[in-house]
Amino acid sequence: MSVPKPSLQLVAEVLEGQARSLSRLISRAEAGEVECRPALAEVYRHTGRAHVIGITGVPGSGKSTLVRGLALAARKSERKVGVIAIDPSSPYSGGAILGDRIRMNELNSDPGIFIRSMATRGALGGLARASLDAVDLMDAAGFDIVLLETVGVGQDEVDVVQATHTTVVVSAPGLGDDVQAIKAGILEIADIHVVSKCDRSDANKTITDLKMMLGLGLREQTTWQPPVVPTSGETGQGIEALLTTIDEHRAYLQQSGELAKRRRQTAEMRMLKTAEDILRQRFVGRRDGVAAELLEQVIARDIDPYAAAQRLLAALHEGEAK
Amino acid sequence: MSVPKPSLQLVAEVLEGQARSLSRLISRAEAGEVECRPALAEVYRHTGRAHVIGITGVPGSGKSTLVRGLALAARKSERKVGVIAIDPSSPYSGGAILGDRIRMNELNSDPGIFIRSMATRGALGGLARASLDAVDLMDAAGFDIVLLETVGVGQDEVDVVQATHTTVVVSAPGLGDDVQAIKAGILEIADIHVVSKCDRSDANKTITDLKMMLGLGLREQTTWQPPVVPTSGETGQGIEALLTTIDEHRAYLQQSGELAKRRRQTAEMRMLKTAEDILRQRFVGRRDGVAAELLEQVIARDIDPYAAAQRLLAALHEGEAK
Repeated sequence: MSVPKPSLQLVAEVLEGQARSLSRLISRAEAGEVECRPALAEVYRHTGRAHVIGITGVPGSGKSTLVRGLALAARKSERKVGVIAIDPSSPYSGGAILGDRIRMNELNSDPGIFIRSMATRGALGGLARASLDAVDLMDAAGFDIVLLETVGVGQDEVDVVQATHTTVVVSAPGLGDDVQAIKAGILEIADIHVVSKCDRSDANKTITDLKMMLGLGLREQTTWQPPVVPTSGETGQGIEALLTTIDEHRAYLQQSGELAKRRRQTAEMRMLKTAEDILRQRFVGRRDGVAAELLEQVIARDIDPYAAAQRLLAALHEGEAK
Repeated sequence: MSVPKPSLQLVAEVLEGQARSLSRLISRAEAGEVECRPALAEVYRHTGRAHVIGITGVPGSGKSTLVRGLALAARKSERKVGVIAIDPSSPYSGGAILGDRIRMNELNSDPGIFIRSMATRGALGGLARASLDAVDLMDAAGFDIVLLETVGVGQDEVDVVQATHTTVVVSAPGLGDDVQAIKAGILEIADIHVVSKCDRSDANKTITDLKMMLGLGLREQTTWQPPVVPTSGETGQGIEALLTTIDEHRAYLQQSGELAKRRRQTAEMRMLKTAEDILRQRFVGRRDGVAAELLEQVIARDIDPYAAAQRLLAALHEGEAK
């Protein structure tokens, strides 16, 4: 597939690190524009340099403050930092958490930091696909570190955060039992644990509880033992230590061969998620044909949704062949 | 597709309302067993009688307590109640929130209540598909009301709760800003709002804030205006009123023609989600062939994940045709 000239120009500008062109291509990827796929395919060839860090944790754990602190800390060593914040958005209006984003935007005056929030819940673009396209674009644009922030609930969010090199799971003192229980589900994906808000008096209990849970966990033993790093957004404590730990994890990934394994997993996940996206788009595009007929049969209870899905897939294939 | 004799026996027992057979078929559906599809297809023909109620809200909003109260209230009018609790589970170990489930299990001594928790995050069974198979099974088994409880974050969870007849969104006083903001995203899907824990002194502020948000919302005007029902798990206040409101909503759905519209939406969602599931299974089954080759090309950056997905879909079709 050849890349049209205007897109080729845009790709060249992204590779030079031009923020406006980067922003434009991210928007087009987020919108699920099929026309920008050749440009993104070209961009993909220039990826693989950035260290991608997933930051996840339950609502209220202080992820955004941590991401802000990490970005500023990385700037001290002259590294360029890209930030992608995935918003838990409305299925209808695509609303975002405004407060956090406004605080983030303060960072935007530094040209070495590029911030983008994604609120993709649309029919055309899957959350995972669009976020990882944005990671590719920032990577190709020369950002040394890409921070991908997401709420740690929901399969899509877990998939995205597992597509990073280093996964940081944020815990915080003072959250309710129900919230803590949800957190338990994502502890296992952590390469590094952070206990935020450690200026609070009850933070030590959270750290102790967390260490106990990790000790009791069924996590597969590897040579990398996920450390627990206490941080505080108030005092700035622990942010430098966290960045150092992230760099140590990166070195471990490269030396152990784990990096290649993760790249494989990520490539597999992306290919499959994208196949699902394409399938959904084809279905939406054929609402008036076979799909509509099958739908009527499901509504009338002549066939069940599973049988309808099988016939739909078969019909889509036949349509392709024509 | 003919239904094998042992399965046909199981289906007959489910239709008679036998709890053990119901439980067995739900487990098989949850495991994603292809062999039980003919049985589920037969079950699907006997659905459409139950009123299915989705209960959603952020962690800590008191959903489980509410579900428990509703189940007991519905039993007073001799209605049979099925409960499906979708757990935010680990992507690895499929862990569940034990505390809530244990509290729920107290209800299990009443044969008019059937409780099932789903922790499906497996490769074979999609969360949406398995949960809605369980709804079908309870519906066909003669349960008058099916309560489907899920955390209101993540696209899968939103899809499932929107596949019900009446969606109840639970808010609670005293949750953090971050949690409240996430809640804002699901307010729009509510047919009925509940403010739980209204025995607390700060509950009035939550009710006022919620009503203000709803007044300012962009929700499409329909003849049904989602009411706000205050409840308390402590005092039992509002539970009967909530059940009455749910019954009123059901009557509205039937009279307005909205029920048919929702059934159409649900059928469409189920067919598509299932098609995605089938696609994933086919991919998993073909890891050693075309998919593996494509994967190597993606890892080597010869092609991007999007192009690989397109080729994968084409290859899967060809495989089908053979």
